[in-house]
Amino acid sequence: MKFVMIEGDGIGPEVTRAACEIVKAAGVRNEWVPAAAGLGAAEQFGEPLPDETLETIRRHRVALKGPCTTPVGKGYRSINVRLRQGLDLYASVRPVKTLPGVKVPYTDVDLIVVRENTEGLYAGLEHVVVPGVVESLRVITKNAAERIVRYAFEFARQHGRRRVTFCHKADVMRLSDGLFLDCARAVADEFPFIQFEEKPIDNVCLELAMDPTRFDVLVMENLFGDVVSDLCAGLVGGLGVVPGANFGARCAVFEAVHGSAPDIAGKGLANPIAVVRSAAMMLDHVGERDAGARIEASVAKTLQRGIGLTRDLGGDGTTATITRELIANLTA
Amino acid sequence: MKFVMIEGDGIGPEVTRAACEIVKAAGVRNEWVPAAAGLGAAEQFGEPLPDETLETIRRHRVALKGPCTTPVGKGYRSINVRLRQGLDLYASVRPVKTLPGVKVPYTDVDLIVVRENTEGLYAGLEHVVVPGVVESLRVITKNAAERIVRYAFEFARQHGRRRVTFCHKADVMRLSDGLFLDCARAVADEFPFIQFEEKPIDNVCLELAMDPTRFDVLVMENLFGDVVSDLCAGLVGGLGVVPGANFGARCAVFEAVHGSAPDIAGKGLANPIAVVRSAAMMLDHVGERDAGARIEASVAKTLQRGIGLTRDLGGDGTTATITRELIANLTA
Ligand SMILES: CC(C)[C@H](C(=O)O)[C@@H](O)C(=O)O
Ligand SMILES: CC(C)[C@H](C(=O)O)[C@@H](O)C(=O)O
Repeated sequence: MKFVMIEGDGIGPEVTRAACEIVKAAGVRNEWVPAAAGLGAAEQFGEPLPDETLETIRRHRVALKGPCTTPVGKGYRSINVRLRQGLDLYASVRPVKTLPGVKVPYTDVDLIVVRENTEGLYAGLEHVVVPGVVESLRVITKNAAERIVRYAFEFARQHGRRRVTFCHKADVMRLSDGLFLDCARAVADEFPFIQFEEKPIDNVCLELAMDPTRFDVLVMENLFGDVVSDLCAGLVGGLGVVPGANFGARCAVFEAVHGSAPDIAGKGLANPIAVVRSAAMMLDHVGERDAGARIEASVAKTLQRGIGLTRDLGGDGTTATITRELIANLTA
Repeated sequence: MKFVMIEGDGIGPEVTRAACEIVKAAGVRNEWVPAAAGLGAAEQFGEPLPDETLETIRRHRVALKGPCTTPVGKGYRSINVRLRQGLDLYASVRPVKTLPGVKVPYTDVDLIVVRENTEGLYAGLEHVVVPGVVESLRVITKNAAERIVRYAFEFARQHGRRRVTFCHKADVMRLSDGLFLDCARAVADEFPFIQFEEKPIDNVCLELAMDPTRFDVLVMENLFGDVVSDLCAGLVGGLGVVPGANFGARCAVFEAVHGSAPDIAGKGLANPIAVVRSAAMMLDHVGERDAGARIEASVAKTLQRGIGLTRDLGGDGTTATITRELIANLTA
């Protein structure tokens, strides 16, 4: 079994190395196929996301990715966005669950944010009408709308989830979110055994702040999903602890969604949990469900025991100490 | 002194009546000029937002507004949006402050959300390209961008606030939010005595969920502001307790941003705090600063004492009992 590995920039090499060790310790036998993206790739190949990287992922179908920094200037578009669009990774999935030992104001959060990953304002279509007047196009298509809502319902079905909440702003964007809402309703009809709810995005954000426990699966367009994913991550401890995944019909890329933390890069201080949990999702995806579940359980146990944790988690440990704990806490 | 009063629908008449009583008890001598908007207006005049209402506000400059429901169907656009655009109320201002006695996971929140109220995706420009493909235009102009950021800085200066955070998504919408960001930076230079910070909207939402106390004044475009306003309201207890205001060069409309709660309408059970606090903002705006401050103080005292509170606030009181408390707790 081969998985593509994009180490990424800054703390990327350190945290992805930790993930590799833990995957190995969990008994998975695989090879890692390295692929380049980010600042390093830009320096080496003059291109932050070389075609070869996309090709490698297309070939092996599954990749694990550390934080990649898009170089500023030169009109580079975000590597993350190009990766999603280039591989048609249309569904971003962010499981958001309260973790033991992580101090946050809410308990018992357990929701999934499903984000449409290819269109909306991320289509990248903008123009200057006259100087000082700019239009960006928010593109919504029936195909992409149906596809993402169907993805959310399929996900709910396969993971035993009971409700899908579609988030929109159809009272303001009557045509675009009107279309999206129509698609959502039509797809919901295909899943009469799963509860469907539709809600304006502002209400959703308010309710998330007041009581995030009432949500199950949330599905929405790209920019709403960007905001809600991070908001939800904040509710359970931030980007250092939540995993991320991007699925297409053909490929899937699992990623730590935090930054490359250049200030602590190379010092052995980085917290690898986000990428470790992303690796667990990857294992689950390829059918190594037992290994994935054991890694998730080890993360919970490690956080709960609170030994060897990195500074961002309130400890005084290092990447090495927390990795050792994560391996030690893997049960058979 | 005359203030326009839009009672609105559902619980609107009850909560605005409470606000009038409290304004009177605070010693303000004014007349209320009634104006119609909402379902009632649609039934009576065949139009949910009659021109005459806009005219009345233009004449008297200042209005207090209860919740107005936009009738569904017939292609009606949101009354709130039309009011803002019709009167060029370009700045929405939402003070978000932890209240005593209101149980929320965060303490010491004290921030202001300033939202551009006239353009972005609310421009209402959309079209069907081919069936199943819709484009909505997100319009950003230099004029509106500079105006709203300047408003935020002026607000900060006048209210002794120390930092303005501009929220954007310029890495994705390079042209539109690039323009907005350039404008924000240029305006920030005019206020060297106030700290300026720029931050992607997803990071802002994450930080709001993790630690909202670090923000002071936030400024952003229309749809971001819609979402962040409600998210922040959720952090301090929800729409039942936060005031809202919309300012233009000429007029200002102060409003409860909650819904019309038809289920409890007419039963005397509604919580009037949102519109009472909006009235306090209105008094402050017209120069009745002492009365405004006394009403705010009374709201805090009433919530803290916890007597006569309505059900949504955890009490078993009525609109009448809480209004009585709000009046009794007005200090001289
Ligand atoms: C880096 C940025 C363009 C990206 C996005 O907005 O999608 C990021 O915020 C994310 O969510 O992965
Ligand atoms: C009713 C709706 C159109 C409105 C908006 O989106 O602005 C509301 O959410 C608000 O914030 O006042």
